[in-house]
Amino acid sequence: MKDRIRRIFAKLGADADALVFVNAASPHLDSSFFYVFDVPSGLFEGCAAVARPDGSLTVLTSPLEEESARQAARRDKDVEVELIRGRDEREKRLTQLMESNDRIALNYHELTHEDYLSIAGAFPEATWVDASSAVRKTRMVKDAIEIERLRRAADIGSEVAREIPSLLRTGITELQLAGEMEYRMARAGASGRSFETIVGFGPHGAEPHFSPQPFPLAAGQSIVCDFGALSQRYVSDITRSYHFGPTDPELKRVHEKVEEAQQAALDQVRPGVAAKEVHLAAARVIDASPWKGLFNHGVGHSIGLAVHDGFAMNPRVEEPLEVGMAVTVEPGIYIAGRGGVRIEDDILVTEKGYEFLTTAPRGYLEVPA
Amino acid sequence: MKDRIRRIFAKLGADADALVFVNAASPHLDSSFFYVFDVPSGLFEGCAAVARPDGSLTVLTSPLEEESARQAARRDKDVEVELIRGRDEREKRLTQLMESNDRIALNYHELTHEDYLSIAGAFPEATWVDASSAVRKTRMVKDAIEIERLRRAADIGSEVAREIPSLLRTGITELQLAGEMEYRMARAGASGRSFETIVGFGPHGAEPHFSPQPFPLAAGQSIVCDFGALSQRYVSDITRSYHFGPTDPELKRVHEKVEEAQQAALDQVRPGVAAKEVHLAAARVIDASPWKGLFNHGVGHSIGLAVHDGFAMNPRVEEPLEVGMAVTVEPGIYIAGRGGVRIEDDILVTEKGYEFLTTAPRGYLEVPA
Repeated sequence: MKDRIRRIFAKLGADADALVFVNAASPHLDSSFFYVFDVPSGLFEGCAAVARPDGSLTVLTSPLEEESARQAARRDKDVEVELIRGRDEREKRLTQLMESNDRIALNYHELTHEDYLSIAGAFPEATWVDASSAVRKTRMVKDAIEIERLRRAADIGSEVAREIPSLLRTGITELQLAGEMEYRMARAGASGRSFETIVGFGPHGAEPHFSPQPFPLAAGQSIVCDFGALSQRYVSDITRSYHFGPTDPELKRVHEKVEEAQQAALDQVRPGVAAKEVHLAAARVIDASPWKGLFNHGVGHSIGLAVHDGFAMNPRVEEPLEVGMAVTVEPGIYIAGRGGVRIEDDILVTEKGYEFLTTAPRGYLEVPA
Repeated sequence: MKDRIRRIFAKLGADADALVFVNAASPHLDSSFFYVFDVPSGLFEGCAAVARPDGSLTVLTSPLEEESARQAARRDKDVEVELIRGRDEREKRLTQLMESNDRIALNYHELTHEDYLSIAGAFPEATWVDASSAVRKTRMVKDAIEIERLRRAADIGSEVAREIPSLLRTGITELQLAGEMEYRMARAGASGRSFETIVGFGPHGAEPHFSPQPFPLAAGQSIVCDFGALSQRYVSDITRSYHFGPTDPELKRVHEKVEEAQQAALDQVRPGVAAKEVHLAAARVIDASPWKGLFNHGVGHSIGLAVHDGFAMNPRVEEPLEVGMAVTVEPGIYIAGRGGVRIEDDILVTEKGYEFLTTAPRGYLEVPA
């Protein structure tokens, strides 16, 4: 992953002699560790990766995934792997790999403060550089390998989104439906869910980050399913809303309004457009409707090795879209106590505008109860 | 969760005016946020919780899980919930909730360095206290609610471990088996897996943290399955090893040796015993066998709201076991290129010794191919 490392250093300028990614215990792993080290297996808790301006990488691996690390290094001549056992040995080896007064860049965004203090303690004379912004901006624009993996993860999500209507029946609980969806993602080749699946029935759909409960489906409820697949460490993130007939006529109109808002946002997507414009296009549609003010989150975020991969689209973000960005577009309307609708797709920014990564139907669908 | 907060402050001494838990974007959430705030739903990305020595708690919630937060606060009179939108508003509200020169404790262990700098920037005169050790030690000893949740998570893991032999067939891949296991956990009531399921066939079983691949099962392979359920935010963590007939006679003897090592470790478990003694008991059995040196990790760790919940059992840890600790006991033998066996159970430390949380059979089992 020499090119990726070089791109990060180019963004850091002449500011760093080395760039170090440090994993704490799961879930506090630095997803960028896996951006510079393409290894299909392993957690690499407590491990570190030292990248240099020439694109070379030294991975300090634990014994728990040593064989996978060595195999990956055999496929990439710019990677060396060394075995360490524990944090003390890691810090000691780092002091041998770098000079005591180096300018060392760290990814503050995914580094625990505890690990920062541990590393800083081993280099009392070093100068510390926050690599978060350079890493974030590099990761925002996907390369061909990444796009292929994102497409695969999105295909799995789309396939399951198409199957959800056939899973709906009176009495199935939110937790059960989430389990069925995750099972179908696994059968389609996912290595897991990319985040905790959201399934909200009826009023629960009004809470964007609702966690599924042992709560049964009943006729008349609308349903929000927000989920995604993990495939070769890359994610998808898709939301579909369904309506378990007989319809609540208001939620049908809400669905149509959200669809209109999503299309308005999509219509803004092209290189050079400020992120906030994409958000505002959706917000304008909703705020000109009877549901003004009921869209309470940003319209999207970039995806990649993480579900929130560094770039956000909300009213405060001036950063422009670039070719190769993969982002979600996901407006919603949430009526407290009643229900909600959110429609979310993953798209890739292209020279002409965008293309869909997720492909499942988005329109209003009433599933007979 | 007033008692939990008071127990943490008792361990901090008179050292802090407030204790603040801060979540970054998922997966960089502080699991201790959910230790002091018992809320069944929601991610709470970018949120914070301010705990005070009297046990009271102010939760700064995002709109994405506001209703769940308010419902949880209605059930606990010591909790107040306030809405914030974004990090700037969070930091501003924190400066109103605390004095500018307070001694503020933070959980460095699960706080990103980026969030540390953001909070520290808002309090230029504050004194910072690392709460990691006090939080860790408090969380190590489980209360009744936690034990009930751990038991439920362990029951789900045990139920699925009993079903695995019926799932084994020639050609099923590691990824497929992992998917089937996770589906059965979901059907048994889990809200997800507690960590990336490990399934290793044949030589892959020799790598403790192996990630399942599209690799098919063949007769003669041994199988390591290390997995766990998430239930009400609590985890289980169980490993079983199976042998897909005709046996490799060496791996049968390895299995029996690992079982003996696990029993030797379990025999050490009682309050007051140093963690390292539990490890060493297992290591002694293995190192007196033909597989000397092939047990390359610590014998266990505590579990709770996280899979690695703060306490480790390895040769360097002098800390004693205490009544109410929930720990794994998981020796293994790993023969590179050939296969491995690990047996892992979750136990609760009791006054008299221990009791099992996980209950599936551990003995050598050859499943006909």
